[in-house]
Amino acid sequence: MTEPLFDTLCVVGPGLIGSSVLRRLRAMPELVGTLIVTDRDRDVLARARALDLGDVVTDDLDAAVKDADCVMLCVPVGAIAPIASRILPIMKSGAILTDVGSTRRSIVDALTPHLRTDIAYVPAHPMAGTEHSGPDAGFATLFEDRWCLITPDRNAPEDAVTRIGAFWHAMGARTRRMDADHHDTICAMVSHLPHLIAFTICGTADTLAEDMRSEVLDFAASGFRDFTRIAASDPTMWRDIFLNNRDALLGVLDRFSQDAAAMADAIRSGDEETIVETIERGRRIRRSLLENRQA
Amino acid sequence: MTEPLFDTLCVVGPGLIGSSVLRRLRAMPELVGTLIVTDRDRDVLARARALDLGDVVTDDLDAAVKDADCVMLCVPVGAIAPIASRILPIMKSGAILTDVGSTRRSIVDALTPHLRTDIAYVPAHPMAGTEHSGPDAGFATLFEDRWCLITPDRNAPEDAVTRIGAFWHAMGARTRRMDADHHDTICAMVSHLPHLIAFTICGTADTLAEDMRSEVLDFAASGFRDFTRIAASDPTMWRDIFLNNRDALLGVLDRFSQDAAAMADAIRSGDEETIVETIERGRRIRRSLLENRQA
Repeated sequence: MTEPLFDTLCVVGPGLIGSSVLRRLRAMPELVGTLIVTDRDRDVLARARALDLGDVVTDDLDAAVKDADCVMLCVPVGAIAPIASRILPIMKSGAILTDVGSTRRSIVDALTPHLRTDIAYVPAHPMAGTEHSGPDAGFATLFEDRWCLITPDRNAPEDAVTRIGAFWHAMGARTRRMDADHHDTICAMVSHLPHLIAFTICGTADTLAEDMRSEVLDFAASGFRDFTRIAASDPTMWRDIFLNNRDALLGVLDRFSQDAAAMADAIRSGDEETIVETIERGRRIRRSLLENRQA
Repeated sequence: MTEPLFDTLCVVGPGLIGSSVLRRLRAMPELVGTLIVTDRDRDVLARARALDLGDVVTDDLDAAVKDADCVMLCVPVGAIAPIASRILPIMKSGAILTDVGSTRRSIVDALTPHLRTDIAYVPAHPMAGTEHSGPDAGFATLFEDRWCLITPDRNAPEDAVTRIGAFWHAMGARTRRMDADHHDTICAMVSHLPHLIAFTICGTADTLAEDMRSEVLDFAASGFRDFTRIAASDPTMWRDIFLNNRDALLGVLDRFSQDAAAMADAIRSGDEETIVETIERGRRIRRSLLENRQA
């Protein structure tokens, strides 16, 4: 019998990510002693109870976190710093605080004044998700073969970082450690910019004349359809991500806009070479992804 | 025993679309009497022969088209007008000329001086495809439940339009008739703009610093991965589409760029309302697509 990773784990926010973690933990009872689930929304808690996601399911945040060896915040990015700064003073000494937020710098900046030397802050961002949300959307295999980016506070002891890494390996994920700003630029490029573009292009289609809009819907070929799938994601979550990763996102968006303008110029002037070169680049990236077995 | 739709059909260019048409016709021998396949590339013809795509497989374009009741050009958009203007003088009186081009206006303008009153020009654009190309990429079910947009020349007799419609229904497609300019705007929005954006964003990722680029590939979350799938398409085909649908494409790209700039402004200024509104629009479009059973 192996030692559990945590005697008591508290998950705040059993949404898509949180409930997926909980489902997997229910299937691997040796990993954690007692599972506590909390949320401020009673309907969410009712679903968590019905789905048997925890040993204790409560709307009392303070009671939920105070004896936990690890508190994992699975809430929208904008809620992480407010909740963390509220619970840090009552968490027990030696505990680990983690969150699954998709952005880092703004959270780190907001949280740093509240951190305690006897509590390790080790956020870990699992790069997994679907366009669905809520306790019923989760599933135990969500993290399998996906990356989880671990961005420990520089004062976090190695032992705490190792535990969080082991936890995500148990979730099925591969882990990589990096600093907060690097994380934010990578995620702006591979996830936040594609989502911003997908939301925007759906909006562009929506502003077409009424008769044309209905035909756009009729004839949505695979190109546009893929964009709408991305664009179906949760508005609050993405609003928070965009606002919290503002600088990195606006940086890659600006670069993309310049590239799009260059492509428009090439089309306008009939510059076949530039057009083909841009398309070939896309294919190269595609091939690299296939070699990395990500596509 | 029903009458065949065409006694002799000639397919020029047995690539993804052409070979898919031919595969389906091989499975429905009652539709067409004699199937002729031609291409200027001998390797392509060798594959067409090996795959048994036609009764006659030849590199002699003139001989292939001169006795056909219907000639179907399944070549890149840029090759349609040159080939059509070459074969129109030798096609037989009463025959139908069709093509599967993804753009219309520039082709119509180039072709109009060459049209004959005794040959019906009835292009039909099947909105189907994959990121693969060539004779081996085709499959008989490619067009099932996909739209095929029929844009007849205004002098084409109704009987010819009806035959082309029946042909595409036999391919499994749904058909809609529209004029050339309307076609081009719709396709610019639902297909060409998404492809342009996908090619561009892959290029943007490719210009990141060397170390970051490899991480972009490592961590490509679903957002970016979907874009690379679109971006894997054939460069020649898309170069031609972009150049031939220049005006409509630059029009929707301009509108999209303004929308993206507005989104950037909203993120820069922390305008939560505009951000959420844009995301909600995407979700509305998604819901409409689901109701239309296209997603």
